[in-house]
Amino acid sequence: MTTPDKHQANGGLYLEDLYVGQRFTSGAHAVDEAQIKTFASQFDPQPFHLDDAAARSTLFAGLAVSGWRTAAITMRLLVDGGAPIAGGIVGAGGEVSWRKPTRPGDILQIESEVLKVTPSRSRPDRGMVTCAARHSINAARSCRC
Amino acid sequence: MTTPDKHQANGGLYLEDLYVGQRFTSGAHAVDEAQIKTFASQFDPQPFHLDDAAARSTLFAGLAVSGWRTAAITMRLLVDGGAPIAGGIVGAGGEVSWRKPTRPGDILQIESEVLKVTPSRSRPDRGMVTCAARHSINAARSCRC
Repeated sequence: MTTPDKHQANGGLYLEDLYVGQRFTSGAHAVDEAQIKTFASQFDPQPFHLDDAAARSTLFAGLAVSGWRTAAITMRLLVDGGAPIAGGIVGAGGEVSWRKPTRPGDILQIESEVLKVTPSRSRPDRGMVTCAARHSINAARSCRC
Repeated sequence: MTTPDKHQANGGLYLEDLYVGQRFTSGAHAVDEAQIKTFASQFDPQPFHLDDAAARSTLFAGLAVSGWRTAAITMRLLVDGGAPIAGGIVGAGGEVSWRKPTRPGDILQIESEVLKVTPSRSRPDRGMVTCAARHSINAARSCRC
């Protein structure tokens, strides 16, 4: 069994390197207003994601990032080192929650923790890892990956 | 109280128009290979979402759409009439599951069903609607919106 540090240095952690309670911290992403609107135009074209003036009279009381953009940025932060898994991150599903709006100028950073490691019964070189991933600023999601 | 048909014709359904068991069907979205790769480059740059040849030797055995793109397309289909809610769709959270890979050429269409309608105690003009939204082709997710 190789040490976690060696595996991580070689391109990611293997199943044997992962343990309950293990924590990771991603890089940071600054929320950009133009990028918010580009994403919303394509995937979530609602006034509170597209136009600050129109957003003021809605539940959000101002421009808010589409939750699906926040989720997509979360994935990017995990892929870029926030969850350094050898072979990549393949999601089976999970729970998502948006507790507060994400706003232009917010800085998103992900703190992840391994909650469960379940090796495959039929393929011992594969397994399912359950983790919680939370934005350290103002959003939260958890995933099984 | 206005009839659901009248409200829907006027731009969406209100809380009083929604009931458990109510169903909606979205329009359709054809999965485009170039768009898959553009999204993956930005949000989920892993080989199985970017390159068909590289994807063949992975768990997916071929190019697969990032699950977060599938989720984002789901949102677009809901906003475009798949969940005709007056005032827009504001997600609090939910469960997401990707049961099978989504592939280039797949046609995505969402079948939604209202599972629960909970008026706000403090603001009777607001409420929480829990719904299940499933791709009729090859993916599934559910949401609270």
